[in-house]
Amino acid sequence: MDPKLVKADHFFVSGLHLDGSTSNPFGSSVNRITVSQLPGLNTLGLSTVHVNYARGGVVPPHIHPRATEILTVLEGNLRVGFVTSNPDENRLITKDLREGDVFVFPIGHVHFQQNVGDGNVSVIAFLSSSNPGVITVANAVFGSNPSIANDVLARAFQVDKAVIDQFQLHF
Amino acid sequence: MDPKLVKADHFFVSGLHLDGSTSNPFGSSVNRITVSQLPGLNTLGLSTVHVNYARGGVVPPHIHPRATEILTVLEGNLRVGFVTSNPDENRLITKDLREGDVFVFPIGHVHFQQNVGDGNVSVIAFLSSSNPGVITVANAVFGSNPSIANDVLARAFQVDKAVIDQFQLHF
Amino acid sequence: MDPKLVKADHFFVSGLHLDGSTSNPFGSSVNRITVSQLPGLNTLGLSTVHVNYARGGVVPPHIHPRATEILTVLEGNLRVGFVTSNPDENRLITKDLREGDVFVFPIGHVHFQQNVGDGNVSVIAFLSSSNPGVITVANAVFGSNPSIANDVLARAFQVDKAVIDQFQLHF
Amino acid sequence: MDPKLVKADHFFVSGLHLDGSTSNPFGSSVNRITVSQLPGLNTLGLSTVHVNYARGGVVPPHIHPRATEILTVLEGNLRVGFVTSNPDENRLITKDLREGDVFVFPIGHVHFQQNVGDGNVSVIAFLSSSNPGVITVANAVFGSNPSIANDVLARAFQVDKAVIDQFQLHF
Amino acid sequence: MDPKLVKADHFFVSGLHLDGSTSNPFGSSVNRITVSQLPGLNTLGLSTVHVNYARGGVVPPHIHPRATEILTVLEGNLRVGFVTSNPDENRLITKDLREGDVFVFPIGHVHFQQNVGDGNVSVIAFLSSSNPGVITVANAVFGSNPSIANDVLARAFQVDKAVIDQFQLHF
Amino acid sequence: MDPKLVKADHFFVSGLHLDGSTSNPFGSSVNRITVSQLPGLNTLGLSTVHVNYARGGVVPPHIHPRATEILTVLEGNLRVGFVTSNPDENRLITKDLREGDVFVFPIGHVHFQQNVGDGNVSVIAFLSSSNPGVITVANAVFGSNPSIANDVLARAFQVDKAVIDQFQLHF
Repeated sequence: MDPKLVKADHFFVSGLHLDGSTSNPFGSSVNRITVSQLPGLNTLGLSTVHVNYARGGVVPPHIHPRATEILTVLEGNLRVGFVTSNPDENRLITKDLREGDVFVFPIGHVHFQQNVGDGNVSVIAFLSSSNPGVITVANAVFGSNPSIANDVLARAFQVDKAVIDQFQLHF
Repeated sequence: MDPKLVKADHFFVSGLHLDGSTSNPFGSSVNRITVSQLPGLNTLGLSTVHVNYARGGVVPPHIHPRATEILTVLEGNLRVGFVTSNPDENRLITKDLREGDVFVFPIGHVHFQQNVGDGNVSVIAFLSSSNPGVITVANAVFGSNPSIANDVLARAFQVDKAVIDQFQLHF
Repeated sequence: MDPKLVKADHFFVSGLHLDGSTSNPFGSSVNRITVSQLPGLNTLGLSTVHVNYARGGVVPPHIHPRATEILTVLEGNLRVGFVTSNPDENRLITKDLREGDVFVFPIGHVHFQQNVGDGNVSVIAFLSSSNPGVITVANAVFGSNPSIANDVLARAFQVDKAVIDQFQLHF
Repeated sequence: MDPKLVKADHFFVSGLHLDGSTSNPFGSSVNRITVSQLPGLNTLGLSTVHVNYARGGVVPPHIHPRATEILTVLEGNLRVGFVTSNPDENRLITKDLREGDVFVFPIGHVHFQQNVGDGNVSVIAFLSSSNPGVITVANAVFGSNPSIANDVLARAFQVDKAVIDQFQLHF
Repeated sequence: MDPKLVKADHFFVSGLHLDGSTSNPFGSSVNRITVSQLPGLNTLGLSTVHVNYARGGVVPPHIHPRATEILTVLEGNLRVGFVTSNPDENRLITKDLREGDVFVFPIGHVHFQQNVGDGNVSVIAFLSSSNPGVITVANAVFGSNPSIANDVLARAFQVDKAVIDQFQLHF
Repeated sequence: MDPKLVKADHFFVSGLHLDGSTSNPFGSSVNRITVSQLPGLNTLGLSTVHVNYARGGVVPPHIHPRATEILTVLEGNLRVGFVTSNPDENRLITKDLREGDVFVFPIGHVHFQQNVGDGNVSVIAFLSSSNPGVITVANAVFGSNPSIANDVLARAFQVDKAVIDQFQLHF
């Protein structure tokens, strides 16, 4: 690395706690710091995220295609879970977390969080990639552009195509 | 490696083409060869799969948490697709394949296949892990054991809890 | 990745089965799909190859310097083998394969195939690199440009230099 | 993984915020969660740490031999810095951080933190290894068991051996 | 690592320079230090080798399936070379080295050395694996146990089977 | 790689043994060959170094942030050592080496060498990165540009700030 290129701003970013409004359908607000915001992360395999959850708020089932995630609760009561892949039988691994509790979501697995307490929840999490990616399952399956054909999804979810059509309207 | 342990059966397995019946709700039949069936794959980062699709059959949207997949069509007409992760906007990347066509599904992304021809489809695919894992989205989200709470899923899919309850009945 | 750059043709290529003529000294025809033909393989660590063998045809002893290979027979009877490295004593690990059989060749090892049946053989194989490389042993040793000095090869193969000179004439 | 072995406690640990007393010479208290405390981190390449700093407290110059670190300030004002390796000229890259600021310390580089505010400082950080290791420079150099010979250190630090002897007394 | 297991002998081995006699058909003597001799190399990705060459001595064409090699000449005049893989056209990359010269052999490529001076040659080399493996091409191709069938080799080398039979007699 | 770009000079460099004068405070002279001097090392994960030590000369405690090192003595008597990281208790692992002895320094750990014989010492070492980096502990801690604040170092080394000021004067 050219010494002249090494400066503090390359390794620094502010505002991780500046989450936006939780007045949205999910009742949560997510602020991600990846290599796009923090160039010094390049090739180093880490990124971070701060999340606020209003009462009852969720981060819906999602996947990071290139990262494991480790999460700790800063404030509140949070239910977390992930589902095992085959050949591990789609088992739901879940836990109710309090301040100072830590949980791990393995790479590429479906996971979610839900505020199950009486107040706000604040968490910080870290991911094992500088560019982890996010796939929100409902949006990827029912809200892609263009849509996945309704007969594929009807077979996948074992419902009528008309039910799939209604799901797709929400995205 | 102890020379006495190196023998051909360690690197060999038969029956990749012996798929089972496609008389099931998905109309497809999958035969996987991973490190469990072929010990010589250990640490070498590869596995393989053969799939048959009856007319109209699908492999429903799924994810391999630890592998990219490369697929080639041996017989028939197959529609394939995957959905990009954020920040790439949930775009559906899809193609209709014929015999000899090759397609790539990036690691950790939701993808599916559908027989769109008039006859049987046969494909062979390879994955970049000796233990790639499989997460069938519908089963992981609606059929985990125990179930993901219906209020989490109602928020995720933006439908009533009663609708979620019906989905969960099918798994 | 810029979303505008993500399109199906990046992840697709046709013609894997379009092997050329087997009317050549080896009696085989190889069609490779690497990152050069399929840009979407970049960084994903996979490539594929289709091979046809006329009756008695071979793929001569060769090495992939950057990839393990997993092969499956689509049609015919194929003898395959690889030789273990030291300290594993140059043992030949060999097997006669039929349709649906699968075999693994570990990274960097000398391996070969030979049609031992009465008809054509067709196989598909996958390699654990998007740019695996191929070193055909006979060509690298006796047909490099410029040639390896004949006294080096005479010592290596423990024959007279005149014998080496004759070998080098064929390449 | 044997499904029977997959349970929530494998992926969960409590008490990250339970730092001990800061009444020690450094005025700081560190609580690490590595694979030793959280078995689910095995092979996943992540660990976490919570640190409290009393007014004026420091975490002295140290190195993680197997991990990059990303740190965020939860409360207070913290000065952080690392020194570039050669051939990048021992440049000190430093920044004063406030709540919500994020900083990256590259793998294997000497770094430190110092509370430069009027109150307590609380931070959470993550490391890109499940077993990152910690080398506190002063302790490794002057407090190893047995000691590094004082003539080696006298040459390294360009001082008299008697000065080195005094340093070694403190450890 | 259990501290009680960390001791100097784990990281130490003597006798790298104790090469054996060069009174053999190749006129060279090789002494390898891999993880088998030096347990501390485990997972660290390095091993070393010392080679002596009598006047005219060679190390015949060989491959390390899991390592790149970097070699430096301690004494004498050494010709070195490797052959590029396809699609790089089997080009021979060669150089005559003197004391203090350094050369690199890329992973998985056929390479050799030959003493082209008037005296002894001594070199030290390092490999990027703690278990690099060695495949001596002539021995693997003509001296495997059991032998590769002579018709395969006859096609590969484009000579009569009787010529192959003679080659195989030497191993 | 474009075949036209593959030429011997890409994989070759001379002068590894051309160490400079040992008439300096450390009594040693270091000559490094990394990817900057030898472009063919790019992506291959190796570099090399030759060191001469005058009688009593040292290479002071230092760290390679991105590489394990394996060293062999060509001539003389050399004391080597490294200090274990926590949780391995800052133990000094040390050994007195003679010609032909080999020693390993694990990635990211503080290590040093000292000529403990009556004559010159010459060594060659290899590192598991084409760009390993070097952090000389004394220079990084006391000689960075700008300086680390003396109160941070006073706490770290548990001495008065005035003592730190004197140390910093030497760099």
